Amino acid sequence: MSETSPSLKEIFSEREKASQERLKTLRGYAYPRSARRYIPVPGTDYSVPSRTVSLTNGESVDLYDTAGIYGDTSAVIDVTKGAPLVRESWLKKRDDLRIVEGASEKCGISSAKITRESEGCMTQLALARKGIITDEMRYIAARENIGAKSDFFTPEMVREEVAAGRAVIPANVNHPEVEPMIIGRRFKVKINSNIGNSAITSSIAEEVEKMVFSTIYGADTVMDLSTGRYIHETREQIIRNSPVPIGTVPLYQALEKVNGIAENLTFEVFRETLIEQALQGVDYYTIHAGLLREFIPMASRRLTGVVSRGGSIMAKWCMFHKKQNFLYERFDEICDICAKYDIAISLGDGLRPGSIHDANDEAQISELKVLGELAQRAWAKNVQVLIEGPGHVPMNRIKENMELELEYCHEAPFYTLGPVVTDVAPGYDHFTSGIGAAMIGWFGTSMLCYVTPKEHLGLPKKDDVREGLMAYRIAAHAADLAKGHPGSTAWDYAMSKARFEFRWDDQFALSINPELAKRFHDEDLPQDCHKASEFCSMCGPKFCSMRISKEIKELAGK
Amino acid sequence: MSETSPSLKEIFSEREKASQERLKTLRGYAYPRSARRYIPVPGTDYSVPSRTVSLTNGESVDLYDTAGIYGDTSAVIDVTKGAPLVRESWLKKRDDLRIVEGASEKCGISSAKITRESEGCMTQLALARKGIITDEMRYIAARENIGAKSDFFTPEMVREEVAAGRAVIPANVNHPEVEPMIIGRRFKVKINSNIGNSAITSSIAEEVEKMVFSTIYGADTVMDLSTGRYIHETREQIIRNSPVPIGTVPLYQALEKVNGIAENLTFEVFRETLIEQALQGVDYYTIHAGLLREFIPMASRRLTGVVSRGGSIMAKWCMFHKKQNFLYERFDEICDICAKYDIAISLGDGLRPGSIHDANDEAQISELKVLGELAQRAWAKNVQVLIEGPGHVPMNRIKENMELELEYCHEAPFYTLGPVVTDVAPGYDHFTSGIGAAMIGWFGTSMLCYVTPKEHLGLPKKDDVREGLMAYRIAAHAADLAKGHPGSTAWDYAMSKARFEFRWDDQFALSINPELAKRFHDEDLPQDCHKASEFCSMCGPKFCSMRISKEIKELAGK
Repeated sequence: MSETSPSLKEIFSEREKASQERLKTLRGYAYPRSARRYIPVPGTDYSVPSRTVSLTNGESVDLYDTAGIYGDTSAVIDVTKGAPLVRESWLKKRDDLRIVEGASEKCGISSAKITRESEGCMTQLALARKGIITDEMRYIAARENIGAKSDFFTPEMVREEVAAGRAVIPANVNHPEVEPMIIGRRFKVKINSNIGNSAITSSIAEEVEKMVFSTIYGADTVMDLSTGRYIHETREQIIRNSPVPIGTVPLYQALEKVNGIAENLTFEVFRETLIEQALQGVDYYTIHAGLLREFIPMASRRLTGVVSRGGSIMAKWCMFHKKQNFLYERFDEICDICAKYDIAISLGDGLRPGSIHDANDEAQISELKVLGELAQRAWAKNVQVLIEGPGHVPMNRIKENMELELEYCHEAPFYTLGPVVTDVAPGYDHFTSGIGAAMIGWFGTSMLCYVTPKEHLGLPKKDDVREGLMAYRIAAHAADLAKGHPGSTAWDYAMSKARFEFRWDDQFALSINPELAKRFHDEDLPQDCHKASEFCSMCGPKFCSMRISKEIKELAGK
Repeated sequence: MSETSPSLKEIFSEREKASQERLKTLRGYAYPRSARRYIPVPGTDYSVPSRTVSLTNGESVDLYDTAGIYGDTSAVIDVTKGAPLVRESWLKKRDDLRIVEGASEKCGISSAKITRESEGCMTQLALARKGIITDEMRYIAARENIGAKSDFFTPEMVREEVAAGRAVIPANVNHPEVEPMIIGRRFKVKINSNIGNSAITSSIAEEVEKMVFSTIYGADTVMDLSTGRYIHETREQIIRNSPVPIGTVPLYQALEKVNGIAENLTFEVFRETLIEQALQGVDYYTIHAGLLREFIPMASRRLTGVVSRGGSIMAKWCMFHKKQNFLYERFDEICDICAKYDIAISLGDGLRPGSIHDANDEAQISELKVLGELAQRAWAKNVQVLIEGPGHVPMNRIKENMELELEYCHEAPFYTLGPVVTDVAPGYDHFTSGIGAAMIGWFGTSMLCYVTPKEHLGLPKKDDVREGLMAYRIAAHAADLAKGHPGSTAWDYAMSKARFEFRWDDQFALSINPELAKRFHDEDLPQDCHKASEFCSMCGPKFCSMRISKEIKELAGK
């Protein structure tokens, strides 16, 4: 790496060692007053994980829990052995699955693992269309009901949404470790955490740590966007330990295989990469098949050109060869591979706008229409589909994005990156994009790809990942409230009640980041006695409106 | 303070000393590549302040600048002497203004200052209605045009908006230090910074520092919400040094005067407080006159009761005395005082919801209707009016708040506190409320009252004030972009262009927080050579889409 000075190399090596040490001693993360509870799924022998918060008033609150084994303090964690195989018994009893011989030799898959493919391409979509309710669907219905008083979500509703293409269950048959989840606009809005190294920085251990902490902090899926060294090995470590679906952009690894020279890409190299990752267990692929050669002149007239990495690589390839995008031309073959392993395709928006100025322009909308056509081609082969969305959009043009996506892409779930609502705040792009994400989530986007504070500036580290996830959990949860998701509403209610009743420890425990809430409170009032005080340092005892409110309530009662 | 242990007292005393030392050596704050420029106002002998950013490509960008003397590196700053008297010559030539004798003895006003009142109550509203364009209006029109290529805003437009009650110029005749600004929905969305001590913590020097840094970080107005010791002295120091309008809630000081016992409040004590603060130069008062006695039962049925401090104090008073709110009963007398000094009234929403559950309920909407009636009563006396708004509102009910405000309050400018869009994220309430603020700003709210990360947990310190302001500048700016404010659009354009052209130093300089943006970038690539690099550590050199985009543009050009 000519760009890395020796001193930086030393820094990175020390960071890697520290990360490896932390992984060796990893224990289940304990949120305050919380314990992992496994809620039985009616009519089955399995259960869904919940973080149950025990309040000081004797009540308890169940929260949707993405942390898998990393949220279970009684679990033994060993990243060299991988996470529990949640789906293994379901996969075993399926009669369409065949063992792929020699996968571990071919692709460096952990030798302990059985590698499968489906004869007849029995994806969740294929099964849903046949009217079959899968174990994954049953699991998901129970999981979406966590925290709600009623069983609002049913397995049949899950099946219907998947069958209609309005929801996606990303669950590669080679990812038995995954705790199934669903991406669709009738369900809880999901968030994705991007991790992965770049040519400049990061190591395998650091990426595994980012994945682990992503799930602890609430990521519903994780994308490994590595573009540096050891892409295959990094991904293997991540997948084997991940309780959440893993997404990738296979183009990045394909490009590495041709030494980073876009012109040298071929469909053969790309296909080989798809299969390699399919056998490892990647749950969804971003495929930039909608960027057609004829759209490139539109993009070159923009203020900020093409800002999607995958998009820019394909645009360069098209221009060099004066040929159509091979991902578009060979899209049916890509679908055939995805169908075999039940990998969902996330249709990348290679022409998403990179600035407020370029939002909703001709290039973007032209590509969106092609994504709709591709969605139908994928569905024809029983492949599940997500549609990726922007990017950079001013608030007044966000709704239009959602409406056009629903129209052109036939209600396939929308999966957006923000959008950022202003360009002037690098360092705060978790927030500038969180505003747009909350809004588009409410309008109907099914999954929000997080943006960290480092976006536009550098590769996020563990703390940046945490702050990005906090911002996106807030955005997604705000959208859930606006849409009336029952479990989400119950969580807010419990917090507001704890606040009014001055149960400070309960407020901390119910916070999205309990450690931070307690630390802020304790800066001025660290004493234990102030955990029952009817005031905080903000207004002091005489001016606390909530305390006075209680007095008023008592007066009114008389 | 029985709640404060000796060790805390020591901590606070040390903090105060450090703050005093910093104030003694205060210099004008220099943003990178930026200089204060005074742009002449056509047809006058005065000028408006701008932060002019000189870019590395020879271009420059003018930004609206709230920092007053604290953003001018060539200025001599002495907080014991106060800020420059920007309006003094304008006030001197007015023939309606009379000197108030003995004000300094009566109220502890700096003896050097002339204290005035207007004979005939010539407020900006009165003058606007007479068709007079004041110096303040001329100044404001020029200021709103900063950064735009055209003179979109005219003095006549400013006059019209003020005359119609759709905009407010908060500028007490006793605050000659203020650099005039306007609050109205045709103009740039403004943000307010709340400062002020509580009975538990903070000192005069710390509050002056918070005011100074509020203006540096972009606060358009500052509210001094002190409820602790030395309220009068703290406010005097703040006003004399403030280039931005200062707001207060006079009820807080009135309550201090009756030793914090709400039942002992009288209109006489309140009126005395109003006059004391009027002579000091407070520019706007929050008055909780809309909380009627008959609304209290509605509030006591809520999940979180009354959460406005002023509201809870008045509710308690009403219940104890079994009488109507004296602020409502004596509202005309309050208006008479405000008219004399041109103090704007910000009608407080004492019944704003304190949780998502209570949003837009009967209590809140009943009070809003009364605020509309009071606005008309104030206008009848030529007093300028703002309407305060929530609070805690889920995203799907924000627009309704704006629409009802415009309808019931006859288009008086709306001034909201957030709203917070979820209750579960204490420690991130600058962000949970920033989402709501950006949305309601776009829908038509004229000023956004910031919320710091400490909201619901404790009294904000200097760093919390900064983070609250950053979040609110982002929210307000995003709203300006969505509304098409010319200067705001130009700022985003310049940033996006610098990004696409890899002018890293320009990106930092144009950032809302340049120091943070540079620090994040430099974590991985600190070397000077990387300030011209066509990549950052996020993707590394091979995968930079913007760099590839440039290559595509070149290819396309051939």
